[in-house]
Amino acid sequence: MSKRILTGIQSSGTPHLGNILGAIGPAIEMSERATEKCFYFIADMHSLTSLKDAQTRIDNTYSVAATWLALGLDIEKHLLYRQSKIPQVSELSWYLGCFMPFSRLSLAHSFKDKSDNLEDVNAGLFTYPVLMCADILLYDAAFVPVGKDQLQHVEFARDVARRINSHYKKEVFVIPESKTSEDVMIVPGIDGRKMSKSYNNFINIFLPEKKLKKRINSIVTSSTPVEEPKDPDTCNVFNIYKLMGAAEQTEALRANYLAGGFGYGAAKKELFELVMDRYAKPRAEYDKYLNDLTELERLLQKSEQQATELADRKLLEVREVLGFK
Amino acid sequence: MSKRILTGIQSSGTPHLGNILGAIGPAIEMSERATEKCFYFIADMHSLTSLKDAQTRIDNTYSVAATWLALGLDIEKHLLYRQSKIPQVSELSWYLGCFMPFSRLSLAHSFKDKSDNLEDVNAGLFTYPVLMCADILLYDAAFVPVGKDQLQHVEFARDVARRINSHYKKEVFVIPESKTSEDVMIVPGIDGRKMSKSYNNFINIFLPEKKLKKRINSIVTSSTPVEEPKDPDTCNVFNIYKLMGAAEQTEALRANYLAGGFGYGAAKKELFELVMDRYAKPRAEYDKYLNDLTELERLLQKSEQQATELADRKLLEVREVLGFK
Repeated sequence: MSKRILTGIQSSGTPHLGNILGAIGPAIEMSERATEKCFYFIADMHSLTSLKDAQTRIDNTYSVAATWLALGLDIEKHLLYRQSKIPQVSELSWYLGCFMPFSRLSLAHSFKDKSDNLEDVNAGLFTYPVLMCADILLYDAAFVPVGKDQLQHVEFARDVARRINSHYKKEVFVIPESKTSEDVMIVPGIDGRKMSKSYNNFINIFLPEKKLKKRINSIVTSSTPVEEPKDPDTCNVFNIYKLMGAAEQTEALRANYLAGGFGYGAAKKELFELVMDRYAKPRAEYDKYLNDLTELERLLQKSEQQATELADRKLLEVREVLGFK
Repeated sequence: MSKRILTGIQSSGTPHLGNILGAIGPAIEMSERATEKCFYFIADMHSLTSLKDAQTRIDNTYSVAATWLALGLDIEKHLLYRQSKIPQVSELSWYLGCFMPFSRLSLAHSFKDKSDNLEDVNAGLFTYPVLMCADILLYDAAFVPVGKDQLQHVEFARDVARRINSHYKKEVFVIPESKTSEDVMIVPGIDGRKMSKSYNNFINIFLPEKKLKKRINSIVTSSTPVEEPKDPDTCNVFNIYKLMGAAEQTEALRANYLAGGFGYGAAKKELFELVMDRYAKPRAEYDKYLNDLTELERLLQKSEQQATELADRKLLEVREVLGFK
């Protein structure tokens, strides 16, 4: 029985510290424990529903790929591929759409969230869950780790897979299961709200040293004077630090906060040094990949070739069942 | 400037006399006058929105292909291909969908006609006009001969092509024009209503001789006795005959009707003989193709190879523009 794990990755630019701590790091750890190949695809076709600029899409995609590789995804063992390089997924998407009730699709959160502003909604945004089903079913994925906002897409995939299997009395598709993490790490941004691209409060750990320092220095803190004791637990700097620091580092920093005579400038310096230390190797690797796109392409294309072979095989099977031999 | 003509062909089973006289014959005549390659595709992917049975789809597709070839389509000069053999169309369809307003698509007749019964509507039926746009734009078609019920699809294709060309300031797509015939021949069925699959009143000219005779004998006529004169213009037999007979044949038959002493049985015999005579060669050819699927496959695949090359070239261009290099 397949135990294949598959995850889609948004291609919306350089992942930030919140993405890395909350999602990418745990995903890579999971891949290290996995007994089968894990599939990670960069959803660049999906990105066309909102992003039309060609160069930005290319840059974003490279940047996402470089991040995953820099953080240690082993692509000798697992696959990291661009969705658009295996366009077979759009063919499967057409087939699946013919078995998916329109009424069900119109209840998709991704669509309903935008339906107040229907004028801005394109057809791609509406059919996007169908493409997502194809992303999953094309590769016989058994487990799909998702956030709660994505649970519905896996439900759709299960539903349409079951409909087709039952219509043709054949196990055409593996019925995928969603996997949600109990405790997803919430990383505060520089203003204390959840770190997010849309709040523009994120920390990009791949920034050049000076810019990274400047960004960390811009974390919002209280106006408590240097000499007074400070509450670490209400401080954004501390709250970010403790997500990365070793227990004894975090305890030492806490002690400094409580003792007084320790300013936010000093705390920010500690945070900066922690980031620089913890991400020294990923920072170097990230730059290496983005300065050698030929090598990055070679690595991606290796995965893409494997994904293409699997996709072609699956599509042959699906075509045979549906009468497109 | 492209003058390429492209037409989609429904793959809903053996075309009947109404299809042949009203659409296929005129299309083949047009191809004979065309100065450029004409593209005819059998819309077997579209058929999945309503037909799920695999073998029926395969049979229907062969039957449609055999009909066009038997009626004389020159595929040394033109292309006849199965839509599903160039699945690149589904990739283009995804791209186009991201530029097509949802609200516009939901106004499509093909969807609105069914929207009373939304429970039965699948997502494929909703997005089908997008696939149709891709069918047209993938091959740089300049002219799309359509019935009035299909005009809207060409409008959609023009609209989305213009949006993309204007967004990227580049002539990515040829803006197609629809071509409607002024006088489409209306062929009456055996019950006098318009000949149609859905009324089950059609004549399949490829039936074996005995069955064809029986079908023609079942044409509904009045109860006027043999000896009395008859009105040819209200007679279904005459009204079908006159669409195929030479002027002098039709005049002779009219004279017989008016003279009296000429029964409907005799009229049906004349019609039967006319059909057998006029379609002698197509009937033989049709059987030949369906008895030699290897040859039929060979012919289709020759077109499909050419279509694939064109599709691949177009997609490369589109991918480059959109940032999927």
